[in-house]
Amino acid sequence: VSRAPAVEIVAIGDELLLGDTIDTNGPWLGDRLAQEGILVSRRTVVGDQAQAIRSGVADALARTGTVVCCGGLGPTQDDLTRPVVAALYGVPLEVDAAWVEVMRERFEKRGLRMPASNVVQAEVPRGGTLFPNDVGTAPGLALHDDALGTTVLLPGVPGELRWLTEHHVLGYLRTRLPRGRGPVLRRVLRTTGIAESALAERIADIVTSIAPLGIAFLPVGIGIDLRVTSWGELPENEAVAALQRAEDRLRERLGPVLYGTGRADLAALVGETLRSRGFTVATAESCTGGLLAKRLTDAAGSSDYVIGGIVAYSNEAKQRLLGVPEALLREHGAVSEPVARAMLEGARRTTNADCALSITGIAGPGGGSSEKPVGTVWIGTAVREQADVRLHRLVGSRAEIRERSAQAALRMLLDQLNAGAS
Amino acid sequence: VSRAPAVEIVAIGDELLLGDTIDTNGPWLGDRLAQEGILVSRRTVVGDQAQAIRSGVADALARTGTVVCCGGLGPTQDDLTRPVVAALYGVPLEVDAAWVEVMRERFEKRGLRMPASNVVQAEVPRGGTLFPNDVGTAPGLALHDDALGTTVLLPGVPGELRWLTEHHVLGYLRTRLPRGRGPVLRRVLRTTGIAESALAERIADIVTSIAPLGIAFLPVGIGIDLRVTSWGELPENEAVAALQRAEDRLRERLGPVLYGTGRADLAALVGETLRSRGFTVATAESCTGGLLAKRLTDAAGSSDYVIGGIVAYSNEAKQRLLGVPEALLREHGAVSEPVARAMLEGARRTTNADCALSITGIAGPGGGSSEKPVGTVWIGTAVREQADVRLHRLVGSRAEIRERSAQAALRMLLDQLNAGAS
Repeated sequence: VSRAPAVEIVAIGDELLLGDTIDTNGPWLGDRLAQEGILVSRRTVVGDQAQAIRSGVADALARTGTVVCCGGLGPTQDDLTRPVVAALYGVPLEVDAAWVEVMRERFEKRGLRMPASNVVQAEVPRGGTLFPNDVGTAPGLALHDDALGTTVLLPGVPGELRWLTEHHVLGYLRTRLPRGRGPVLRRVLRTTGIAESALAERIADIVTSIAPLGIAFLPVGIGIDLRVTSWGELPENEAVAALQRAEDRLRERLGPVLYGTGRADLAALVGETLRSRGFTVATAESCTGGLLAKRLTDAAGSSDYVIGGIVAYSNEAKQRLLGVPEALLREHGAVSEPVARAMLEGARRTTNADCALSITGIAGPGGGSSEKPVGTVWIGTAVREQADVRLHRLVGSRAEIRERSAQAALRMLLDQLNAGAS
Repeated sequence: VSRAPAVEIVAIGDELLLGDTIDTNGPWLGDRLAQEGILVSRRTVVGDQAQAIRSGVADALARTGTVVCCGGLGPTQDDLTRPVVAALYGVPLEVDAAWVEVMRERFEKRGLRMPASNVVQAEVPRGGTLFPNDVGTAPGLALHDDALGTTVLLPGVPGELRWLTEHHVLGYLRTRLPRGRGPVLRRVLRTTGIAESALAERIADIVTSIAPLGIAFLPVGIGIDLRVTSWGELPENEAVAALQRAEDRLRERLGPVLYGTGRADLAALVGETLRSRGFTVATAESCTGGLLAKRLTDAAGSSDYVIGGIVAYSNEAKQRLLGVPEALLREHGAVSEPVARAMLEGARRTTNADCALSITGIAGPGGGSSEKPVGTVWIGTAVREQADVRLHRLVGSRAEIRERSAQAALRMLLDQLNAGAS
C-alpha cells in the first residue's frame, strides 16, 4: 500500500524521559501533520546530552531524510539542540543581528535589560532558515543539505511550537516533501460491553475487505475504540466517502454496541442527547469536586443545556447548598444511597433543571473503611421525576476513581435518556 | 560522571504517532524506573508495522542491551509485538496451556465463551518468561539471550502495564541489570516572574559547583522550574542530603522568586496556605465550569479546607444559586466586574467560607464581541471581607483559556493570602 510522505520527530529533554513532563508536542504534531498528508513514521525521545541528541537526529535522518526536533532551544547551558545539529551538518552558528534586536525590544517593553545569554537564541546555522517566533524568544530554525536531508528545530514550549508550526513549518515542509495523494484521515467508532477478541471476530470480514482503509482495535478502559484510517492513498473527497461507507457497515453490524463516533467523548454525547430533547442538566458532586461539571462544560455551546452545578464537598455544603437533611448524613453517612438521592433532588430543586446527576464517594487515598472502602461511590441520575441511584465499586488512584466516577455518571444518564425516560 | 544502568523503552501503536492517544506509559515507566536507580536513556515510538517494530527493538537492544516494549499484545491482527520480537530472537511461539485456562475461566465468570482468537495471548516465545496478569488477559513476557540482551513485553493498557511492572518486571530487571549506586532522585523548585536567561545568570555559580548533581531549566508556561537531579551516582541518603543543600542554596539566592517545590502545583500550594491559616474556601465559576473546584480538590485531604463551590453556568444559575441580582446581569452583562464581585459575595454567603474565588469570562470559541472578545475573563478573590476583582485578557483555545483562568484565580488568591490579608 502506498503511503503519505514520512517525517520523524525527535523530542529532546531529560524531563520527558524521567516522566516529569508528558510529551504533548509529539502527539499534536502527529495529528497536525496527518491533516496535511504527512505521516510521522517514528518518534524518538532523547535526553539533554550532546551525544544522545546527535545520534537521535542522525539515525532519524538516515531513515526518512526529514526530521522535526522539539526542545533544547533555550538560553541555558542545558540547551544543546542548536549547536549539536549545526555540528552534525558541519556548519558554524552565526548570530542573526535582527533577531537580537527583536529580543532586546521585547525585554525593554517589559522594562527589563536583556541578559547576554539570550544572544545564543539568535544563532542560526550558516545557510539555515530562521522562522520568527511572535510568541517567544526562541525562533524556529531549518537546515537542509542534499546528503543529510532536512531538519527543523522548534522550541519545546507547546504554545510556541504550535504557533511556529502553523505559521512557518507546514509551509516550509510542503516545499521540501513530495506531495502525497491525500490527507491521513481517520474516524473513531467507540464500542462498549464487548471483548476485543469477540469484536474482532464479529467484524473480521469487514476488516479484510475495506482496503486501502485499515481498521485498528484500541482498548480504552471503558471499551474498545475502532479506528478506521485512510493512510493518504486516497484524495480527500474519496477518503471521506470511503470512511463513511466503512462507518455505515460497522454501524449496521454492531448495533447498540457502538455508542459514539469521532473523538466525541461521553460528555459530548450526553450533551448532544440533551440538546436534541431540549433538556437542561445540573450536577451535585462531592468526591469528584467539580470534575463532572467540568466534563459537561468542556464542549463549546454547552450553555445550551448546562444550567450549573453544586460542588458540595463538605457535609456542611451538602446541607446548605443542596438541602440534604442533617439526619440523613448522621444516620447513613455522606457516602450512601439516601444522600446520593437527596443530592440529586437538591440539584434539580435549586436549579430547576430537567435532568440531574449526583456523585458521593470515597476517592481516597484516605477515608476508606472495611464497610466503605476507597472506591465506594454512589451515583444518581434523574430525568425529570425518574431517578436511578446505584452503588459503584471503582478501583485505581484518587485521580482514576474521580475520572471513573464522572464517566460512570455520564454513562448512567445516557442510558436513562436512551431508555426513553422523559 | 558515572550514571545508573540504562534501559530503553519502545512504545508501539499508530495511535501514539497519530496523536489520538497521549503516551503516559513511557513517562510513568521513566519515573518508576528512576526510583529503582535505572535510567531510561531513550524512548522510541513506532507504528503497528512489523518492520517498524523489529527495527525499533533491534536498534534499542544494540544501544543498551535492555528494552521494555509497551503495547501490541492484544488478540487482533494489528497486534504484532509478540511474533515480531520472537522472530527477532529466532525462537518459535508456544501456547502456555495454563494461561489459556486462566483466560477461559475469566470469560466464563462473566458468562461468556472465550473467543478462539484470545489463544494468541497465551503464546510465549520458547525459553521466555510469562508474567501472569491479574488485571487483564495479556500476560507480560520477557526474552533474554546473551547476544541480543533482554526484552520485556508489556500490554499498552496503563493499568495493566503498571500492575505488571510493580508485581513482576521490577524484580525481573533487578536480576538482569547491574546494581546502580543509588536511585535517580530529583527535586523541582518552581520560580515565577523571572526570565530563563536572567535566572541562569543569577545562579550560574551554583550550577557549576554542585556536581555530581545537575540543574536543568524547564519553562512551564507560568514560570521556570529548576530541576536538581542526583543521577544515581550517590547512595540514597547522601543524595537526599545533597539535594537538600542545593535547595537551601537556591532558596537563599532566589528569595520570593521561588514559590514552590516538589511537584506541588499552584492549587496544592493554595491548599497548604489555607490549611496553615485554618481558612476554608469556596468557588463560584461560570466559564471554567467546575475546573477551578476540581483543581482545588485534586489533592487528597482537600476536604480540610474546601467547603464546596457553585458552577453558575447560565444566568439563571447565577441568580438562583449565587443571588446575583438580575439588574446587574442586564446592565453589565454576565462577564463584568460587578457580576464577578456579586458571585464572590454569593460564594461566601451561601457557603460561609473564609475565602472565595469567582470566575466569569468568555472561553470561546463563540460568544465573543469587539467589546468583550474571547479570552475576556473577570476574576475575583476574597479573603474574609477583602475582595480583589481584576480583568484578565487571556489567549488560546477554549481549553487553554479555561486552564489559564483557573491558574490566574489561584495565583490571585495566593498573592492575597501571602500579602497577609486576614
